[in-house]
Amino acid sequence: MKRSKVSNNVIRRLPRYLRKLDELTEAGISRISSSDMGQQLGLTPSQIRQDLSCFGGFGQQGYGYSVPALREQIAAILGMDRGYRAILIGVGNIGHALIDNFCFSDWGVTLSAAFDVKSELIGSSLNGTAIYSMDELERYLEENPVDIAVLTVPKDAALPVTERLIAAGIDAIWNFTNIELTGPDSDVLVENIHFSDSLLSLSYYISERRDEQQTK
Amino acid sequence: MKRSKVSNNVIRRLPRYLRKLDELTEAGISRISSSDMGQQLGLTPSQIRQDLSCFGGFGQQGYGYSVPALREQIAAILGMDRGYRAILIGVGNIGHALIDNFCFSDWGVTLSAAFDVKSELIGSSLNGTAIYSMDELERYLEENPVDIAVLTVPKDAALPVTERLIAAGIDAIWNFTNIELTGPDSDVLVENIHFSDSLLSLSYYISERRDEQQTK
Repeated sequence: MKRSKVSNNVIRRLPRYLRKLDELTEAGISRISSSDMGQQLGLTPSQIRQDLSCFGGFGQQGYGYSVPALREQIAAILGMDRGYRAILIGVGNIGHALIDNFCFSDWGVTLSAAFDVKSELIGSSLNGTAIYSMDELERYLEENPVDIAVLTVPKDAALPVTERLIAAGIDAIWNFTNIELTGPDSDVLVENIHFSDSLLSLSYYISERRDEQQTK
Repeated sequence: MKRSKVSNNVIRRLPRYLRKLDELTEAGISRISSSDMGQQLGLTPSQIRQDLSCFGGFGQQGYGYSVPALREQIAAILGMDRGYRAILIGVGNIGHALIDNFCFSDWGVTLSAAFDVKSELIGSSLNGTAIYSMDELERYLEENPVDIAVLTVPKDAALPVTERLIAAGIDAIWNFTNIELTGPDSDVLVENIHFSDSLLSLSYYISERRDEQQTK
């Protein structure tokens, strides 16, 4: 796929477009204008047109977007059709929740194995995903293609496990540990889930609203 | 606090600044220039100066920022000093993980109670947080000040529980359910944690990198 450098803000909006298109599909809607889509997403129509034009023009003047065609194109841009394979490290509460409830395959990703240090988990399987010993990590990575490591270990284990993953050739980590894994010079792609960032944004918006109400 | 309208992108960066300042504090660093901070966060110094100037100028030319002073100011901007109180609805894996491992008080929020429908959980407590029956929700909200509802219920329960929360006067929801709770016209502040958005962004960046490597 030909790519020009696209801003992170645009990239971050693509999954939202995808979710919206899935909702529209479920509601039986097969065509949508940029203004309707904008209204439903809290964006301006021109922003939507501009975002999508980064990847080549979709949509037709006066017709709008075909929901299934746009959905397919955005899914391809996001790499959902590339068959990425993931392993999960650390089957605590969060790891457990992801294996049980997060449907990796809905997003084009296959969760192929999980790893933990707890002997009572090793050898069992959860929602069809086998749990291996951390001792088997390097051997597993040698023998199986893995694109993404989902890191759900306790904080103390985050950096040592990351070192092992990188040494074993992993170059993309989905990080749930709240620990900064890499400096800006590293070659590893790290996508952080920072729960606190989200809570603090909410805290900001609550504060903003209360301040506005007080000055009314 | 006097507030001018600040762009969402700036607001979303404030928690990252806060985390960085906490790291610096832990490392015993009490002063930092905008260029050092920029380098560590992957932002330009001018972007940092511009972001912080939205809230009144901090920092001094040639001196940089005082880490503790800036930390305190950003915490105040984010509302961390306002004593917000939260309840959590749904003690499944994610709810459990949040109660056990997410330190709400680190972010200025008190988690005061949890609610569930499972009889084996009701009346027990987890990491100091009492678990009540969902039947007691309205009474609890009448008797206790609550600013934020953390929604960690199964998908099917998301909308009915949200209706109950709104009817009981809750106007800020931290939503882990992956269900869109409100239209753009609603008065309720909803902050969504969409795991899939994060995974798809990572999938995009992996795809971008692989495409670049192929064209080399």
